[in-house]
Amino acid sequence: MINSAQYEFSCGVELESVDIQLDIERAYDLEYQFIMTSISHPRFNRDFTKASIGNSFSNKVAFTRSDTLLQSNYWRSSIVGKTSTNGIDLDSIDPTIRSNSVKTLKQEISWAAHLSLPSILLPTPSFNSTNYAQVVNQSLQSLSYMKVWIRIPLVSPKSQLLNKFDYYQDHNTSGGSGNNLVDNDNPWEWWNNFRLLCNQHPNLSAVLEMTSDLPSKEQLQQWLGEPVKCVIIPTSVFLTNKAGFPTLSKAHQQFLLQLFNYNIQFVVSGASMDTLKDYKTYLKFLHTNQNPLTQEEYFEMPYLDFLQAPLQPLMDNLESQTYEVFEKDPIKYKQYQNAVRLALLDLDKKDSKDDPIIIMVVGAGRGPLVNSSIQASIEANKFVKVFAVEKNPNAIVTLRNRIIMEGWEEIVTVIDSDMRDWNTEYRADIMVSELLGSFGDNELSPECLDGAQRYLKKDTGISIPTWYTSYIAPISSSKLFNEVTAYGDLKHSETPYVVKPHNFHQLAESKPLFTFSHPNRDEIIDNSRYESLEFELTIPSTTCHGFIGYFDCCLYKDVHISINPSNFSTGMFSWFPIYFPLKQPVYFSNGNLNNNNNNNIKAKCAFWRNVSKSKVWYEWCLLSPTITPIQNVGGRSYYIGL
Amino acid sequence: MINSAQYEFSCGVELESVDIQLDIERAYDLEYQFIMTSISHPRFNRDFTKASIGNSFSNKVAFTRSDTLLQSNYWRSSIVGKTSTNGIDLDSIDPTIRSNSVKTLKQEISWAAHLSLPSILLPTPSFNSTNYAQVVNQSLQSLSYMKVWIRIPLVSPKSQLLNKFDYYQDHNTSGGSGNNLVDNDNPWEWWNNFRLLCNQHPNLSAVLEMTSDLPSKEQLQQWLGEPVKCVIIPTSVFLTNKAGFPTLSKAHQQFLLQLFNYNIQFVVSGASMDTLKDYKTYLKFLHTNQNPLTQEEYFEMPYLDFLQAPLQPLMDNLESQTYEVFEKDPIKYKQYQNAVRLALLDLDKKDSKDDPIIIMVVGAGRGPLVNSSIQASIEANKFVKVFAVEKNPNAIVTLRNRIIMEGWEEIVTVIDSDMRDWNTEYRADIMVSELLGSFGDNELSPECLDGAQRYLKKDTGISIPTWYTSYIAPISSSKLFNEVTAYGDLKHSETPYVVKPHNFHQLAESKPLFTFSHPNRDEIIDNSRYESLEFELTIPSTTCHGFIGYFDCCLYKDVHISINPSNFSTGMFSWFPIYFPLKQPVYFSNGNLNNNNNNNIKAKCAFWRNVSKSKVWYEWCLLSPTITPIQNVGGRSYYIGL
Repeated sequence: MINSAQYEFSCGVELESVDIQLDIERAYDLEYQFIMTSISHPRFNRDFTKASIGNSFSNKVAFTRSDTLLQSNYWRSSIVGKTSTNGIDLDSIDPTIRSNSVKTLKQEISWAAHLSLPSILLPTPSFNSTNYAQVVNQSLQSLSYMKVWIRIPLVSPKSQLLNKFDYYQDHNTSGGSGNNLVDNDNPWEWWNNFRLLCNQHPNLSAVLEMTSDLPSKEQLQQWLGEPVKCVIIPTSVFLTNKAGFPTLSKAHQQFLLQLFNYNIQFVVSGASMDTLKDYKTYLKFLHTNQNPLTQEEYFEMPYLDFLQAPLQPLMDNLESQTYEVFEKDPIKYKQYQNAVRLALLDLDKKDSKDDPIIIMVVGAGRGPLVNSSIQASIEANKFVKVFAVEKNPNAIVTLRNRIIMEGWEEIVTVIDSDMRDWNTEYRADIMVSELLGSFGDNELSPECLDGAQRYLKKDTGISIPTWYTSYIAPISSSKLFNEVTAYGDLKHSETPYVVKPHNFHQLAESKPLFTFSHPNRDEIIDNSRYESLEFELTIPSTTCHGFIGYFDCCLYKDVHISINPSNFSTGMFSWFPIYFPLKQPVYFSNGNLNNNNNNNIKAKCAFWRNVSKSKVWYEWCLLSPTITPIQNVGGRSYYIGL
Repeated sequence: MINSAQYEFSCGVELESVDIQLDIERAYDLEYQFIMTSISHPRFNRDFTKASIGNSFSNKVAFTRSDTLLQSNYWRSSIVGKTSTNGIDLDSIDPTIRSNSVKTLKQEISWAAHLSLPSILLPTPSFNSTNYAQVVNQSLQSLSYMKVWIRIPLVSPKSQLLNKFDYYQDHNTSGGSGNNLVDNDNPWEWWNNFRLLCNQHPNLSAVLEMTSDLPSKEQLQQWLGEPVKCVIIPTSVFLTNKAGFPTLSKAHQQFLLQLFNYNIQFVVSGASMDTLKDYKTYLKFLHTNQNPLTQEEYFEMPYLDFLQAPLQPLMDNLESQTYEVFEKDPIKYKQYQNAVRLALLDLDKKDSKDDPIIIMVVGAGRGPLVNSSIQASIEANKFVKVFAVEKNPNAIVTLRNRIIMEGWEEIVTVIDSDMRDWNTEYRADIMVSELLGSFGDNELSPECLDGAQRYLKKDTGISIPTWYTSYIAPISSSKLFNEVTAYGDLKHSETPYVVKPHNFHQLAESKPLFTFSHPNRDEIIDNSRYESLEFELTIPSTTCHGFIGYFDCCLYKDVHISINPSNFSTGMFSWFPIYFPLKQPVYFSNGNLNNNNNNNIKAKCAFWRNVSKSKVWYEWCLLSPTITPIQNVGGRSYYIGL
């Protein structure tokens, strides 16, 4: 156990600041790191329709305080600016109000950028803030340093009000007016519409405002797939404990603990200066008292949401460092040892020193499976002869040295060859391999083992693994999607990536996709596959960014190694999942069919595994609720070379 | 009137050919241009699961006739190949049938490409032909010469059957099983799903098969927006007239006459050799007896579906040729003359030779509006003085010469200046301009006239035009969409194009978008605009590819020039519409909500006209049924320079 939290705790305070320099100093004294405050004076209304006031800073009265009030490093690090909300409506049907609002917002964003504020907080949009989104989207194109934050309450003010009167539950039977009350009233939809119009700009983030009522658990989870950069906690959300100090309900605490796993800042809002310290103390206390990271979590931290191209072990030789990392897996080799032991005990063969059981380790690398096999033979009390077949000449050096060091010279024979090419008279009783990728077959285990199985004994020969199945599930993740689109080309938007997904929301339980069994005794072996899968989503709406893939592998009988969540091999770290991106995000909604009991979203996708003489590749697409073009046609963007 | 049809009549015949050489000769004798026939022998079934037969042409028995049977120029020009349908199901749940079907189809497509056939006809897909589409999509990537045609009946066989029993109309009240019968049973949907999976590949086209029953008129119109390359007319669709010769019903004739306007080939199917000639004679008769093209249609022919970048008359000077074409418009200048005459008569001013009515023509070009103004003054019997303001020095040369030639020296003064810069003591009674683009304001008429109106008389001065409004409507057009995506970059997918749309389907009546009135006496003139518009579609489903734009301009009182369909100025050819593409096609469907009376598709879009100091640009997006990212943000891809 490593006693450290994932992220530093950073907390600010929302203030209507009159003396900004004084307020910063007081906030620092109370151990707040920054303040969130209005850019302009709240009572300063500008009228851009009058000729005397242009769309510039030439107003006779300045609309805000001077930039010289603070040193620039304070502006850059300690202030989150808030734009005006008073009388501002960028989607007003009154063109004068709309035009004034647009110009006010542009002026304030421009001013905040001039001050180099780290971020600017914009008011909560509605379901139909089209023009508001357009203005912000234009600004996003020119901003470089400053990030744009959109304030989103967890529950809409309307729902909060209705909840207070215990009215909202199951009373919305107003009768087919077709009004999207539920949709329109879901703040996630406000955010989603806004960011779709802005084409998921990477500098646009959500700032969640905690509410006394919380939405359903699944709707809270949904936010974990969004780019949430900050969480505002109004003091009204806090309860008071017996000692008179602020505290949060269990549900709020639980959500906060989840949020601590992300790189999110927190802001206390609504407190007077003299009670401010207590809130910060309480939040810091929650943060400090989290469960410390496990070794696995600590190991994975630098890889969170980091896209890696999948290995191509057939085309490339692995590096020493890669072997070293994977050999440390505390679970994988134990499971192989268990599988080999069970297989040895099951074999109907009288073994002796002169006629030992033959184990072939194909793809032996630097020897961990050779070791597992020998340990298993000791446990099972069997005589074995191990052939260690390996194509990488660099790994062979280490392997030969290990054999001498361990004293295995009598047992192990090293075969310096590609398993598909080796010619031998020997026939294996057991063939052991670890050729799996994150998606099971994606490192060409099927093709390699099909080639190697000719020296597995007919009828009685056992392959370890016996079979493996890939699993797939739709996900929402602006983060992963933006990582892919940042490359800016077709190739990267059609490549699957090995990744430890973190800022994501899995939309349904994963389902089995392709299965391969070994040995494969079909007359003509066909490793191409096609499947379409349907998922039922329990969330009313979401934006899908692609699919997450896993594998489950049966080594032998009930001995599995799996990265599929439903039977994950706890502690095993050799594989991260695989992410298949969609080229365009797709909005899913249950369409709000009020009177339909069975209105869960049905998301359907199709996957292909294609095989040609020289390569293997996947193609994929969405079939429902919308058909998307088939991606990676003919392996044009990504393939695995044979 | 020009007595010529738009396209040559090309007709083939579908045959189960046994002796292909003989059949071609007989078809030629009967004046058919090509035959449509199977690539392989219909009774030749291949089994790719057996080891003896690989995925190659090494079968012991050849699966089809030899390529040497015909000279290659016959294969290239006279044969449309059909792939096998017998036992073929690429989406079978039986993996053996599926795999065999995939290999058979691939083999036949490969063979047809080897023969350099101009096109290959593939069987009708179903609503769920996902795997079939994937295989064809892969083939499309590698084919260069040969086109892929998909056979689609106008009405599904199931519906045809039901119609026969008079059952189908209003009897589908089977009660909320949620089965998409209507959608699944609409052959347009089969085609649409297929081509969406294939990402609207430009070499993939639909071949319509006529049916005795026809779908609704609007569903027939829908096909005019699709890439239909061929229409098959089974002999069973024909009626027999009193003389015993084949003829078509009025409804079929009407649809055929529409199809004749497109570059489509026709195929007669199902006739015996001895009756074949009669069908061809009848179809040729229909084709010859079409209404001949009008002068306008003839003029427009080379421009159909041809994308042009809109003019930038402020930044660039027009060429002589461009002036010449536009000056020939038979309607536009008559309307200006009418407008000026009415304005002259309305003016409350005693004119005399010494104190004439002052007309300023701003943007006079080579003088057509000067001419209209003078003709109007003669008709109205008024003394006028005309200032002809023009910034293009090349046009000025022509203009000065014309003034001498026409003897206008006493009346007309040429001002060699940009209208925004000219300084004068004179104040105009009437200001005449023609600065409109296809979208009304898109050649910056508002900005130019705002600049020029300072020398229009306060209170009494009249601007011709008085106001103009842009109109917009959603359209479906694979053709225009593919023309845009062929450029392969973001810039082109965010540019509006001037185009005479032909292979397109307008999804609803156009609606007014932005209006500008002149003179504009606002204290601060704001020519930026934002509107969102909702359209109600009467077709159950479609794929939207963007918006078509028009303008309607009031010159004076009830004198209009308009390219908006509802009051189009017949005969006027100076403007084609403007096409705003969507970056991705968007599928619209009414969702098949059986029990909902009001289930027409509501398509909503937003348009912005943005103005900065140096440029004007549009942004646009779809809001419903799906939100699409705002296009051309900040004018990054297209703008009009000020």
